[in-house]
Amino acid sequence: MSKIYVVGIGPGEYEQMTIKAANVLKSCDVIVGYTVYVDLVKEHFSDKEFMTTPMKKEVERCKLAFEVASQNKTVAMICSGDAGVYGMTGLMLEIGAEYPDIEVETVAGVTAAIGGAAVLGAPLIHDFCLISLSDLLTPIEKIEKRLENASAADFGIVLYNPSSKKRHDYLQKACDIMLKHKSEDTVCGIVNNIGREGEFFKVMTLKELRDTKVDMFTTVFIGNSQTKEINGKMVTPRGYKLDK
Amino acid sequence: MSKIYVVGIGPGEYEQMTIKAANVLKSCDVIVGYTVYVDLVKEHFSDKEFMTTPMKKEVERCKLAFEVASQNKTVAMICSGDAGVYGMTGLMLEIGAEYPDIEVETVAGVTAAIGGAAVLGAPLIHDFCLISLSDLLTPIEKIEKRLENASAADFGIVLYNPSSKKRHDYLQKACDIMLKHKSEDTVCGIVNNIGREGEFFKVMTLKELRDTKVDMFTTVFIGNSQTKEINGKMVTPRGYKLDK
Repeated sequence: MSKIYVVGIGPGEYEQMTIKAANVLKSCDVIVGYTVYVDLVKEHFSDKEFMTTPMKKEVERCKLAFEVASQNKTVAMICSGDAGVYGMTGLMLEIGAEYPDIEVETVAGVTAAIGGAAVLGAPLIHDFCLISLSDLLTPIEKIEKRLENASAADFGIVLYNPSSKKRHDYLQKACDIMLKHKSEDTVCGIVNNIGREGEFFKVMTLKELRDTKVDMFTTVFIGNSQTKEINGKMVTPRGYKLDK
Repeated sequence: MSKIYVVGIGPGEYEQMTIKAANVLKSCDVIVGYTVYVDLVKEHFSDKEFMTTPMKKEVERCKLAFEVASQNKTVAMICSGDAGVYGMTGLMLEIGAEYPDIEVETVAGVTAAIGGAAVLGAPLIHDFCLISLSDLLTPIEKIEKRLENASAADFGIVLYNPSSKKRHDYLQKACDIMLKHKSEDTVCGIVNNIGREGEFFKVMTLKELRDTKVDMFTTVFIGNSQTKEINGKMVTPRGYKLDK
Protein backbone atom coordinates (compact mmCIF):
# COMPACT_ATOMS: atom_id res chain seq x y z
CA MET A 1 0.00 0.00 0.00
CA SER A 2 1.34 3.43 -0.94
CA LYS A 3 1.57 6.02 1.77
CA ILE A 4 1.35 9.79 2.02
CA TYR A 5 2.59 11.56 5.12
CA VAL A 6 1.09 15.01 5.70
CA VAL A 7 3.86 16.70 7.65
CA GLY A 8 3.76 19.87 9.74
CA ILE A 9 7.26 21.34 9.53
CA GLY A 10 6.71 23.82 12.39
CA PRO A 11 7.26 27.58 12.18
CA GLY A 12 10.17 27.39 9.74
CA GLU A 13 13.44 26.86 11.62
CA TYR A 14 14.75 23.32 11.00
CA GLU A 15 15.23 22.65 14.74
CA GLN A 16 11.55 23.34 15.47
CA MET A 17 10.50 20.36 13.37
CA THR A 18 9.76 17.14 15.29
CA ILE A 19 12.23 14.28 15.05
CA LYS A 20 9.49 12.25 13.35
CA ALA A 21 8.91 14.94 10.70
CA ALA A 22 12.62 15.04 9.89
CA ASN A 23 12.80 11.22 9.73
CA VAL A 24 9.80 11.09 7.36
CA LEU A 25 11.32 13.74 5.09
CA LYS A 26 14.61 11.81 5.10
CA SER A 27 12.95 8.51 4.16
CA CYS A 28 10.29 9.57 1.62
CA ASP A 29 10.75 9.62 -2.16
CA VAL A 30 9.01 12.89 -3.06
CA ILE A 31 8.31 16.09 -1.10
CA VAL A 32 5.23 18.02 -2.27
CA GLY A 33 4.26 21.49 -1.05
CA TYR A 34 3.58 25.16 -1.52
CA THR A 35 6.67 26.78 -3.06
CA VAL A 36 7.55 28.90 0.01
CA TYR A 37 7.50 25.92 2.41
CA VAL A 38 9.52 23.72 0.09
CA ASP A 39 12.19 26.44 0.00
CA LEU A 40 12.33 26.36 3.83
CA VAL A 41 13.29 22.67 3.98
CA LYS A 42 15.08 22.11 0.66
CA GLU A 43 18.66 22.55 1.90
CA HIS A 44 18.20 19.85 4.58
CA PHE A 45 16.81 17.20 2.24
CA SER A 46 18.58 18.09 -0.99
CA ASP A 47 18.62 14.52 -2.38
CA LYS A 48 14.81 14.39 -2.64
CA GLU A 49 12.53 14.99 -5.57
CA PHE A 50 10.48 18.17 -4.97
CA MET A 51 7.14 19.14 -6.50
CA THR A 52 5.51 22.49 -5.81
CA THR A 53 2.26 24.29 -6.58
CA PRO A 54 1.54 27.97 -5.89
CA MET A 55 -0.93 29.41 -3.36
CA LYS A 56 -4.67 28.97 -4.08
CA LYS A 57 -3.89 25.68 -5.85
CA GLU A 58 -4.53 23.57 -2.76
CA VAL A 59 -6.89 21.05 -4.38
CA GLU A 60 -4.45 20.54 -7.27
CA ARG A 61 -1.58 20.08 -4.80
CA CYS A 62 -3.47 17.34 -2.94
CA LYS A 63 -4.45 15.53 -6.14
CA LEU A 64 -0.81 15.72 -7.29
CA ALA A 65 0.27 14.02 -4.04
CA PHE A 66 -2.18 11.15 -4.61
CA GLU A 67 -1.16 10.79 -8.27
CA VAL A 68 2.51 10.53 -7.32
CA ALA A 69 1.73 8.07 -4.52
CA SER A 70 -0.24 5.97 -7.03
CA GLN A 71 3.10 5.36 -8.80
CA ASN A 72 4.29 3.45 -5.71
CA LYS A 73 6.27 6.35 -4.31
CA THR A 74 6.22 7.44 -0.67
CA VAL A 75 5.11 11.06 -0.58
CA ALA A 76 5.54 13.71 2.10
CA MET A 77 3.15 16.65 1.68
CA ILE A 78 4.51 19.49 3.81
CA CYS A 79 2.64 22.33 5.55
CA SER A 80 4.03 25.13 7.69
CA GLY A 81 3.17 24.87 11.38
CA ASP A 82 0.87 21.91 11.91
CA ALA A 83 -0.93 20.26 9.00
CA GLY A 84 -4.12 19.92 11.05
CA VAL A 85 -4.56 23.62 11.97
CA TYR A 86 -5.81 25.56 8.94
CA GLY A 87 -3.67 23.03 7.04
CA MET A 88 -3.97 20.41 4.32
CA THR A 89 -4.81 17.26 6.31
CA GLY A 90 -8.55 17.84 6.04
CA LEU A 91 -8.50 18.23 2.28
CA MET A 92 -6.15 15.23 1.96
CA LEU A 93 -8.61 13.00 3.86
CA GLU A 94 -11.55 14.33 1.82
CA ILE A 95 -9.80 13.69 -1.50
CA GLY A 96 -8.32 10.46 -0.10
CA ALA A 97 -11.81 8.93 -0.05
CA GLU A 98 -11.31 8.51 -3.82
CA TYR A 99 -7.98 6.71 -3.33
CA PRO A 100 -8.81 3.82 -0.94
CA ASP A 101 -5.46 2.09 -1.61
CA ILE A 102 -3.37 5.01 -0.38
CA GLU A 103 -2.88 5.45 3.36
CA VAL A 104 -2.68 9.02 4.73
CA GLU A 105 -0.83 9.65 8.02
CA THR A 106 -0.48 13.05 9.68
CA VAL A 107 2.76 14.00 11.43
CA ALA A 108 1.97 16.70 14.00
CA GLY A 109 3.94 19.94 14.16
CA VAL A 110 4.27 23.18 16.13
CA THR A 111 1.56 25.57 14.88
CA ALA A 112 2.07 29.38 14.93
CA ALA A 113 -0.02 29.80 18.11
CA ILE A 114 2.30 27.46 20.03
CA GLY A 115 5.53 28.68 18.43
CA GLY A 116 4.56 32.33 18.81
CA ALA A 117 3.47 31.87 22.42
CA ALA A 118 6.94 30.54 23.27
CA VAL A 119 8.44 33.74 21.85
CA LEU A 120 5.99 36.09 23.61
CA GLY A 121 6.22 34.42 27.02
CA ALA A 122 3.21 32.41 28.18
CA PRO A 123 0.02 33.91 26.73
CA LEU A 124 -1.82 30.59 26.26
CA ILE A 125 -1.51 28.99 29.69
CA HIS A 126 -5.30 29.03 30.14
CA ASP A 127 -8.31 28.37 27.85
CA PHE A 128 -7.93 29.98 24.43
CA CYS A 129 -9.36 30.08 20.88
CA LEU A 130 -7.81 30.20 17.44
CA ILE A 131 -9.67 32.37 14.94
CA SER A 132 -8.63 33.04 11.35
CA LEU A 133 -9.60 36.49 10.06
CA SER A 134 -9.50 35.29 6.44
CA ASP A 135 -12.99 35.42 4.92
CA LEU A 136 -11.87 33.78 1.69
CA LEU A 137 -13.54 30.48 2.70
CA THR A 138 -15.61 31.57 5.74
CA PRO A 139 -18.53 34.05 5.93
CA ILE A 140 -17.46 37.22 7.77
CA GLU A 141 -20.57 37.02 10.00
CA LYS A 142 -19.33 33.69 11.37
CA ILE A 143 -15.90 35.16 12.13
CA GLU A 144 -17.47 38.16 13.88
CA LYS A 145 -19.75 35.95 15.97
CA ARG A 146 -16.75 33.89 17.08
CA LEU A 147 -14.79 37.03 18.03
CA GLU A 148 -17.79 38.28 19.98
CA ASN A 149 -18.48 35.04 21.88
CA ALA A 150 -14.83 34.31 22.61
CA SER A 151 -14.36 37.81 24.06
CA ALA A 152 -17.53 37.63 26.15
CA ALA A 153 -16.33 34.37 27.74
CA ASP A 154 -12.88 35.84 28.53
CA PHE A 155 -10.92 33.42 26.36
CA GLY A 156 -7.36 34.16 25.33
CA ILE A 157 -7.53 34.60 21.54
CA VAL A 158 -5.00 33.93 18.79
CA LEU A 159 -5.66 35.47 15.39
CA TYR A 160 -4.32 33.74 12.26
CA ASN A 161 -4.27 35.57 8.91
CA PRO A 162 -4.86 38.95 10.59
CA SER A 163 -4.28 40.94 7.42
CA SER A 164 -3.77 40.82 3.68
CA LYS A 165 -3.77 43.35 0.86
CA LYS A 166 -7.54 43.14 0.47
CA ARG A 167 -8.21 42.94 4.21
CA HIS A 168 -5.98 45.73 5.56
CA ASP A 169 -8.52 46.91 8.18
CA TYR A 170 -9.69 43.50 9.45
CA LEU A 171 -7.55 43.55 12.60
CA GLN A 172 -8.95 46.96 13.53
CA LYS A 173 -12.50 45.70 13.02
CA ALA A 174 -11.75 42.58 15.07
CA CYS A 175 -10.33 44.72 17.90
CA ASP A 176 -13.49 46.83 17.90
CA ILE A 177 -15.59 43.70 18.42
CA MET A 178 -13.30 42.41 21.18
CA LEU A 179 -13.30 45.84 22.88
CA LYS A 180 -17.04 45.44 23.48
CA HIS A 181 -16.17 42.80 26.11
CA LYS A 182 -12.45 43.13 26.85
CA SER A 183 -10.80 46.10 28.55
CA GLU A 184 -8.69 48.38 26.36
CA ASP A 185 -5.82 47.61 28.76
CA THR A 186 -5.97 43.87 28.00
CA VAL A 187 -2.40 42.66 27.46
CA CYS A 188 -1.81 41.65 23.83
CA GLY A 189 1.16 40.70 21.69
CA ILE A 190 2.23 40.20 18.11
CA VAL A 191 4.93 37.94 16.70
CA ASN A 192 6.32 38.27 13.18
CA ASN A 193 8.26 35.61 11.27
CA ILE A 194 8.15 33.04 14.08
CA GLY A 195 11.29 30.89 13.97
CA ARG A 196 12.46 32.56 10.77
CA GLU A 197 14.86 35.33 9.70
CA GLY A 198 13.59 38.61 11.17
CA GLU A 199 11.66 37.14 14.11
CA PHE A 200 10.19 40.03 16.09
CA PHE A 201 7.73 40.35 18.97
CA LYS A 202 6.02 43.17 20.80
CA VAL A 203 3.75 43.29 23.85
CA MET A 204 1.08 46.02 23.94
CA THR A 205 -2.46 46.82 25.07
CA LEU A 206 -5.60 45.97 23.11
CA LYS A 207 -6.07 49.69 22.49
CA GLU A 208 -2.58 49.86 20.95
CA LEU A 209 -3.13 46.66 18.97
CA ARG A 210 -6.14 48.25 17.29
CA ASP A 211 -3.84 50.78 15.61
CA THR A 212 -0.97 48.40 14.87
CA LYS A 213 -0.06 47.44 11.31
CA VAL A 214 0.34 43.70 10.81
CA ASP A 215 0.92 41.54 7.75
CA MET A 216 0.39 37.95 6.65
CA PHE A 217 3.49 36.83 8.59
CA THR A 218 2.11 38.17 11.89
CA THR A 219 0.35 36.08 14.53
CA VAL A 220 -1.70 38.12 17.01
CA PHE A 221 -2.36 37.22 20.66
CA ILE A 222 -5.06 38.80 22.85
CA GLY A 223 -4.88 37.99 26.56
CA ASN A 224 -7.70 37.13 28.95
CA SER A 225 -8.62 39.42 31.88
CA GLN A 226 -5.82 37.93 34.01
CA THR A 227 -2.99 38.25 31.49
CA LYS A 228 -0.06 40.39 32.72
CA GLU A 229 3.11 41.88 31.35
CA ILE A 230 6.13 40.59 33.28
CA ASN A 231 9.57 41.91 32.25
CA GLY A 232 8.38 42.64 28.74
CA LYS A 233 6.76 39.21 28.29
CA MET A 234 3.05 38.35 27.99
CA VAL A 235 2.02 35.97 30.79
CA THR A 236 -1.39 34.41 31.47
CA PRO A 237 -1.51 32.86 34.95
CA ARG A 238 -2.96 29.39 35.43
CA GLY A 239 -4.07 30.27 38.93
CA TYR A 240 -1.39 28.71 41.14
CA LYS A 241 -0.97 30.47 44.49
CA LEU A 242 2.46 31.99 44.95
CA ASP A 243 3.55 32.54 48.56
CA LYS A 244 5.49 35.75 48.46
CA MET B 1 24.05 34.23 32.99
CA SER B 2 22.42 30.93 33.97
CA LYS B 3 19.66 29.63 31.80
CA ILE B 4 16.55 27.53 32.24
CA TYR B 5 14.85 25.99 29.23
CA VAL B 6 11.18 25.15 29.72
CA VAL B 7 10.76 22.28 27.27
CA GLY B 8 7.58 20.76 25.87
CA ILE B 9 8.41 17.11 25.18
CA GLY B 10 5.27 16.48 23.09
CA PRO B 11 2.71 13.74 23.71
CA GLY B 12 5.24 11.21 25.03
CA GLU B 13 6.83 9.31 22.15
CA TYR B 14 10.48 10.35 21.73
CA GLU B 15 10.05 10.99 17.97
CA GLN B 16 7.28 13.54 18.58
CA MET B 17 9.70 15.84 20.40
CA THR B 18 11.16 18.68 18.33
CA ILE B 19 14.81 18.47 17.30
CA LYS B 20 15.44 21.56 19.43
CA ALA B 21 13.88 19.94 22.51
CA ALA B 22 16.09 16.88 22.09
CA ASN B 23 19.20 19.06 21.60
CA VAL B 24 18.43 21.07 24.74
CA LEU B 25 17.93 17.91 26.79
CA LYS B 26 21.21 16.53 25.43
CA SER B 27 23.16 19.68 26.29
CA CYS B 28 21.73 20.68 29.70
CA ASP B 29 23.14 19.69 33.08
CA VAL B 30 19.95 18.88 35.00
CA ILE B 31 16.46 17.78 33.89
CA VAL B 32 13.67 18.80 36.31
CA GLY B 33 10.06 17.63 36.04
CA TYR B 34 7.01 15.82 37.28
CA THR B 35 7.93 12.20 37.98
CA VAL B 36 5.78 10.73 35.18
CA TYR B 37 7.29 12.97 32.46
CA VAL B 38 10.84 12.37 33.63
CA ASP B 39 10.20 8.63 33.29
CA LEU B 40 9.11 9.19 29.66
CA VAL B 41 12.44 10.72 28.62
CA LYS B 42 14.92 9.14 31.07
CA GLU B 43 16.12 6.31 28.81
CA HIS B 44 17.10 8.74 26.02
CA PHE B 45 19.15 11.06 28.24
CA SER B 46 20.48 8.62 30.81
CA ASP B 47 23.70 10.53 31.53
CA LYS B 48 21.82 13.52 32.96
CA GLU B 49 21.05 14.46 36.53
CA PHE B 50 17.28 14.20 37.15
CA MET B 51 15.20 15.96 39.81
CA THR B 52 11.49 15.28 40.23
CA THR B 53 8.59 16.56 42.28
CA PRO B 54 5.12 14.98 42.47
CA MET B 55 1.84 16.41 41.14
CA LYS B 56 0.37 19.46 42.91
CA LYS B 57 3.93 20.57 43.82
CA GLU B 58 4.23 22.87 40.80
CA VAL B 59 5.40 25.97 42.68
CA GLU B 60 8.05 23.93 44.51
CA ARG B 61 9.18 22.40 41.21
CA CYS B 62 9.68 25.83 39.63
CA LYS B 63 11.57 27.17 42.64
CA LEU B 64 13.77 24.06 42.57
CA ALA B 65 14.63 24.79 38.92
CA PHE B 66 15.71 28.35 39.80
CA GLU B 67 17.72 27.19 42.82
CA VAL B 68 19.60 24.65 40.70
CA ALA B 69 20.19 27.23 37.93
CA SER B 70 21.56 29.62 40.59
CA GLN B 71 24.41 27.13 41.06
CA ASN B 72 25.55 27.86 37.50
CA LYS B 73 23.92 24.79 36.00
CA THR B 74 21.89 24.75 32.80
CA VAL B 75 18.46 23.41 33.65
CA ALA B 76 15.76 21.90 31.43
CA MET B 77 12.33 21.88 33.08
CA ILE B 78 10.18 19.45 31.10
CA CYS B 79 6.41 19.45 30.54
CA SER B 80 4.31 17.00 28.56
CA GLY B 81 2.86 18.42 25.34
CA ASP B 82 3.72 22.10 25.12
CA ALA B 83 4.96 24.04 28.15
CA GLY B 84 2.83 27.04 27.20
CA VAL B 85 -0.57 25.29 27.09
CA TYR B 86 -1.78 24.56 30.64
CA GLY B 87 1.95 24.12 31.30
CA MET B 88 4.70 25.52 33.50
CA THR B 89 6.04 28.43 31.42
CA GLY B 90 3.65 30.94 32.98
CA LEU B 91 4.58 30.03 36.53
CA MET B 92 8.28 30.01 35.58
CA LEU B 93 8.04 33.57 34.25
CA GLU B 94 6.06 34.71 37.32
CA ILE B 95 8.60 33.20 39.74
CA GLY B 96 11.44 34.26 37.46
CA ALA B 97 10.72 37.91 38.29
CA GLU B 98 12.53 37.17 41.57
CA TYR B 99 15.58 35.77 39.74
CA PRO B 100 16.60 38.54 37.31
CA ASP B 101 19.98 36.91 36.59
CA ILE B 102 18.46 33.72 35.23
CA GLU B 103 17.15 33.68 31.67
CA VAL B 104 14.07 31.56 30.88
CA GLU B 105 13.53 30.27 27.33
CA THR B 106 10.56 28.19 26.21
CA VAL B 107 11.03 25.39 23.68
CA ALA B 108 7.67 24.77 21.97
CA GLY B 109 6.18 21.29 21.70
CA VAL B 110 3.23 19.38 20.29
CA THR B 111 0.30 19.80 22.71
CA ALA B 112 -2.38 17.09 23.12
CA ALA B 113 -4.87 18.96 20.90
CA ILE B 114 -2.41 18.91 17.98
CA GLY B 115 -1.07 15.40 18.63
CA GLY B 116 -4.56 13.99 19.19
CA ALA B 117 -5.96 15.69 16.09
CA ALA B 118 -3.32 13.96 13.96
CA VAL B 119 -4.51 10.60 15.33
CA LEU B 120 -8.25 11.34 14.86
CA GLY B 121 -7.93 12.75 11.33
CA ALA B 122 -8.39 16.49 10.89
CA PRO B 123 -10.82 17.80 13.52
CA LEU B 124 -9.10 21.19 14.00
CA ILE B 125 -8.81 22.48 10.44
CA HIS B 126 -11.02 25.46 11.27
CA ASP B 127 -11.40 27.84 14.27
CA PHE B 128 -11.36 25.99 17.60
CA CYS B 129 -11.06 26.47 21.38
CA LEU B 130 -9.20 24.64 24.10
CA ILE B 131 -11.08 24.35 27.39
CA SER B 132 -9.88 22.55 30.52
CA LEU B 133 -12.67 20.98 32.59
CA SER B 134 -10.51 21.05 35.74
CA ASP B 135 -12.03 23.42 38.30
CA LEU B 136 -9.09 23.04 40.69
CA LEU B 137 -7.78 26.50 39.74
CA THR B 138 -10.74 27.93 37.76
CA PRO B 139 -14.29 28.71 38.93
CA ILE B 140 -16.77 26.24 37.40
CA GLU B 141 -19.01 29.13 36.27
CA LYS B 142 -16.20 30.43 34.05
CA ILE B 143 -15.73 27.01 32.48
CA GLU B 144 -19.47 26.67 31.85
CA LYS B 145 -19.68 30.12 30.28
CA ARG B 146 -16.80 29.24 27.93
CA LEU B 147 -18.47 25.96 26.92
CA GLU B 148 -21.71 27.82 26.28
CA ASN B 149 -20.19 30.65 24.22
CA ALA B 150 -17.88 28.39 22.22
CA SER B 151 -20.79 26.12 21.30
CA ALA B 152 -23.06 29.02 20.34
CA ALA B 153 -20.39 30.34 17.94
CA ASP B 154 -19.91 26.89 16.32
CA PHE B 155 -16.25 26.52 17.33
CA GLY B 156 -14.57 23.14 17.25
CA ILE B 157 -13.78 22.39 20.92
CA VAL B 158 -10.98 20.40 22.55
CA LEU B 159 -11.45 19.42 26.19
CA TYR B 160 -8.37 18.92 28.38
CA ASN B 161 -8.67 17.22 31.79
CA PRO B 162 -12.15 15.90 30.94
CA SER B 163 -12.37 13.72 34.05
CA SER B 164 -10.77 12.78 37.34
CA LYS B 165 -11.82 10.76 40.37
CA LYS B 166 -13.57 13.74 41.93
CA ARG B 167 -15.01 15.01 38.62
CA HIS B 168 -16.37 11.78 37.10
CA ASP B 169 -19.52 13.46 35.69
CA TYR B 170 -17.92 16.67 34.32
CA LEU B 171 -17.81 15.49 30.70
CA GLN B 172 -21.52 14.64 30.85
CA LYS B 173 -22.31 18.08 32.26
CA ALA B 174 -20.15 19.73 29.59
CA CYS B 175 -21.96 17.78 26.85
CA ASP B 176 -25.32 18.93 28.23
CA ILE B 177 -24.18 22.56 27.90
CA MET B 178 -22.83 22.02 24.38
CA LEU B 179 -26.05 20.20 23.36
CA LYS B 180 -27.97 23.44 23.94
CA HIS B 181 -26.30 24.80 20.78
CA LYS B 182 -24.76 21.85 18.95
CA SER B 183 -26.73 19.03 17.31
CA GLU B 184 -26.63 15.64 19.05
CA ASP B 185 -25.26 14.27 15.75
CA THR B 186 -22.19 16.56 15.90
CA VAL B 187 -19.14 14.44 15.05
CA CYS B 188 -16.85 14.02 18.08
CA GLY B 189 -13.81 11.96 18.95
CA ILE B 190 -11.69 10.85 21.87
CA VAL B 191 -8.01 9.91 21.95
CA ASN B 192 -6.37 8.07 24.84
CA ASN B 193 -2.64 7.90 25.56
CA ILE B 194 -1.61 10.00 22.55
CA GLY B 195 1.80 8.88 21.29
CA ARG B 196 2.17 6.41 24.16
CA GLU B 197 1.67 2.68 24.83
CA GLY B 198 -2.04 1.91 24.42
CA GLU B 199 -2.90 4.78 22.06
CA PHE B 200 -6.58 4.48 21.16
CA PHE B 201 -9.09 6.64 19.32
CA LYS B 202 -12.81 6.55 18.63
CA VAL B 203 -15.12 8.72 16.53
CA MET B 204 -18.70 9.12 17.75
CA THR B 205 -21.62 11.56 17.97
CA LEU B 206 -22.02 14.20 20.68
CA LYS B 207 -24.96 12.19 22.02
CA GLU B 208 -22.71 9.12 22.35
CA LEU B 209 -19.88 11.20 23.85
CA ARG B 210 -22.22 12.27 26.66
CA ASP B 211 -22.38 8.67 27.88
CA THR B 212 -18.73 7.78 27.26
CA LYS B 213 -16.34 7.08 30.11
CA VAL B 214 -13.07 8.99 29.86
CA ASP B 215 -10.09 9.36 32.18
CA MET B 216 -7.25 11.81 32.79
CA PHE B 217 -5.32 10.41 29.80
CA THR B 218 -8.18 11.18 27.38
CA THR B 219 -8.36 14.26 25.13
CA VAL B 220 -11.86 14.99 23.83
CA PHE B 221 -12.70 16.64 20.47
CA ILE B 222 -16.10 18.12 19.57
CA GLY B 223 -16.57 19.09 15.92
CA ASN B 224 -18.22 22.17 14.47
CA SER B 225 -21.43 21.96 12.41
CA GLN B 226 -19.45 21.05 9.26
CA THR B 227 -17.34 18.24 10.76
CA LYS B 228 -17.80 14.88 9.02
CA GLU B 229 -16.81 11.27 9.51
CA ILE B 230 -14.77 10.04 6.53
CA ASN B 231 -13.60 6.40 6.59
CA GLY B 232 -13.69 6.32 10.38
CA LYS B 233 -11.76 9.59 10.77
CA MET B 234 -13.01 12.95 12.09
CA VAL B 235 -12.63 15.65 9.42
CA THR B 236 -13.50 19.35 9.64
CA PRO B 237 -13.49 20.96 6.17
CA ARG B 238 -11.73 24.28 5.61
CA GLY B 239 -14.15 25.16 2.84
CA TYR B 240 -12.20 24.39 -0.34
CA LYS B 241 -14.42 23.53 -3.29
CA LEU B 242 -13.88 20.02 -4.60
CA ASP B 243 -14.86 19.44 -8.24
CA LYS B 244 -16.26 15.96 -8.30
